[in-house]
Amino acid sequence: MNRSGADCGPPRKQVAEPLFETMTVVGVGLIGGSLARAARERGLVSKIVGLGRGEKNLRKALDLGVIDCMETDWAKGVRDAELVVLATPVESIVELFAKIGPLCGEETILTDVGSVKGPIVEAAERALPSPGRFVGGHPVAGTEHSGAEAGFASLFMERTTILTPTERTDPEPLERLRALWEAVGSRVVVMGAERHDRIMGFVSHLPHIVAYTLVHTIYTEDEREGEVAKFSAGGFLDFTRIASSHPEMWRDICLMNRGALLEAVEAFARTLDGFKAMISAGDGKGLEEHFDRCRRTRAALLEGKK
Amino acid sequence: MNRSGADCGPPRKQVAEPLFETMTVVGVGLIGGSLARAARERGLVSKIVGLGRGEKNLRKALDLGVIDCMETDWAKGVRDAELVVLATPVESIVELFAKIGPLCGEETILTDVGSVKGPIVEAAERALPSPGRFVGGHPVAGTEHSGAEAGFASLFMERTTILTPTERTDPEPLERLRALWEAVGSRVVVMGAERHDRIMGFVSHLPHIVAYTLVHTIYTEDEREGEVAKFSAGGFLDFTRIASSHPEMWRDICLMNRGALLEAVEAFARTLDGFKAMISAGDGKGLEEHFDRCRRTRAALLEGKK
Repeated sequence: MNRSGADCGPPRKQVAEPLFETMTVVGVGLIGGSLARAARERGLVSKIVGLGRGEKNLRKALDLGVIDCMETDWAKGVRDAELVVLATPVESIVELFAKIGPLCGEETILTDVGSVKGPIVEAAERALPSPGRFVGGHPVAGTEHSGAEAGFASLFMERTTILTPTERTDPEPLERLRALWEAVGSRVVVMGAERHDRIMGFVSHLPHIVAYTLVHTIYTEDEREGEVAKFSAGGFLDFTRIASSHPEMWRDICLMNRGALLEAVEAFARTLDGFKAMISAGDGKGLEEHFDRCRRTRAALLEGKK
Repeated sequence: MNRSGADCGPPRKQVAEPLFETMTVVGVGLIGGSLARAARERGLVSKIVGLGRGEKNLRKALDLGVIDCMETDWAKGVRDAELVVLATPVESIVELFAKIGPLCGEETILTDVGSVKGPIVEAAERALPSPGRFVGGHPVAGTEHSGAEAGFASLFMERTTILTPTERTDPEPLERLRALWEAVGSRVVVMGAERHDRIMGFVSHLPHIVAYTLVHTIYTEDEREGEVAKFSAGGFLDFTRIASSHPEMWRDICLMNRGALLEAVEAFARTLDGFKAMISAGDGKGLEEHFDRCRRTRAALLEGKK
């Protein structure tokens, strides 16, 4: 265990000039592992260190060839890193800055991949010795699976990665992280953390809450009336795919993006009330217009994705 | 136009003893057209007549070989039918009984494929000269597409078809329709119309309303804040696939299943309120338990589908 950089074996063959020498990934799960795979495949980094507390997962990542070395000692893990990527569950990222910050070199670039940005960016600016070297990041990508073995190099292809610098962020780390995410296939968009959290509250966190609520509602009715859920058709099961995501992750997202998510839930509840009123009043014309507008909106969204 | 049965050309080769001689399908759309294709493919009927007002769609169905003859005259269309399947939009089925009932033979079996059953069964019993020959039906299958060209013979494979007889229904039509639906690959379940509507209110109509509400909420936020919807990830688009279904169809379903749907929407709104309270109170333990139960429920639903 705790192998130092020297034990990593001969350097990998590079297919291009690497963007970073050593990249340390803290938390080699779905996102961290996929970034490692993508960076390796494209020759974007010379060496990848997997750092974390979970020895078993790191060992698996090492065996899979996702990382070059594993490390469970924080100081050793970040000491020689040119880039440190925090890819642990979103709640724990907030606590990592105070722990890792003082161990990093002055020039080390720090980023994260958490799906909530406000509290993370705030914690980084409060706790890091060199907050200008940190840029918050969020690759808008994922599956309902988790762990190093669930990762794949093309996860970020044609997806959006949002970077959330502040007034204090140095321009150089921002540009180098932009280059890294673009090199793994992402479209990079730069915006403030607050705007990021508001948008994600609507387009990602709200749909999850709605899916969870739907599954729960049908489950409760099934318990009361019996044999209800078994009549659900394919559409419902597709619909609730996202309701099988990690409970701990969604708990943390809900708590960390509480304000924006509550706003989104309230907007949804108001719209639902409007629907209910139309159904209740038998307002056929209103319903049809409403449904038609939804259909056109979805078509426009799909068009915009092309 | 208005060709009589004699103009249908030579009888098709049968692969099995047909269950019905002439089957008239009123409304050759996705469901009616798929039933015709499936019955033809399996040799379950000797002749298929397409009946309706839309000459263009019938002509297309004829050209595609989905039906053997087309008919726009109600009397001629049902006169020789052993089975008449009403497969027009759900709202219009209610009005067809008074029109078609008196034109049918005494032995003609009548059924429908509407996704709401209460008002249809009620109308049939009120308007038909021989209500005992009618059995309400609902194949729980479909796609977001419509029209004769969207149909396919395997649409009902491994899906559930619900039949909703009443105390007045003769046993023979029920058993013959059961045989037909089983022969096209469906599991047949028999229950009362009221129970059907309650179940569908929860597992089908509610998810549609929720999907429509979600699209509308994000669309509204996008209009107000700008550039919100374009950050929606794959999950959201899958999720809203059902929100691109036919506006008129969903208007009619909402109006015809108003009572059960309102109950389902209210149950959903209560659950959402509970979620909101937990988020608002920062109740991490409650949220995690809630999410975990949802995940297990979905896994159990999927398991039950196997």
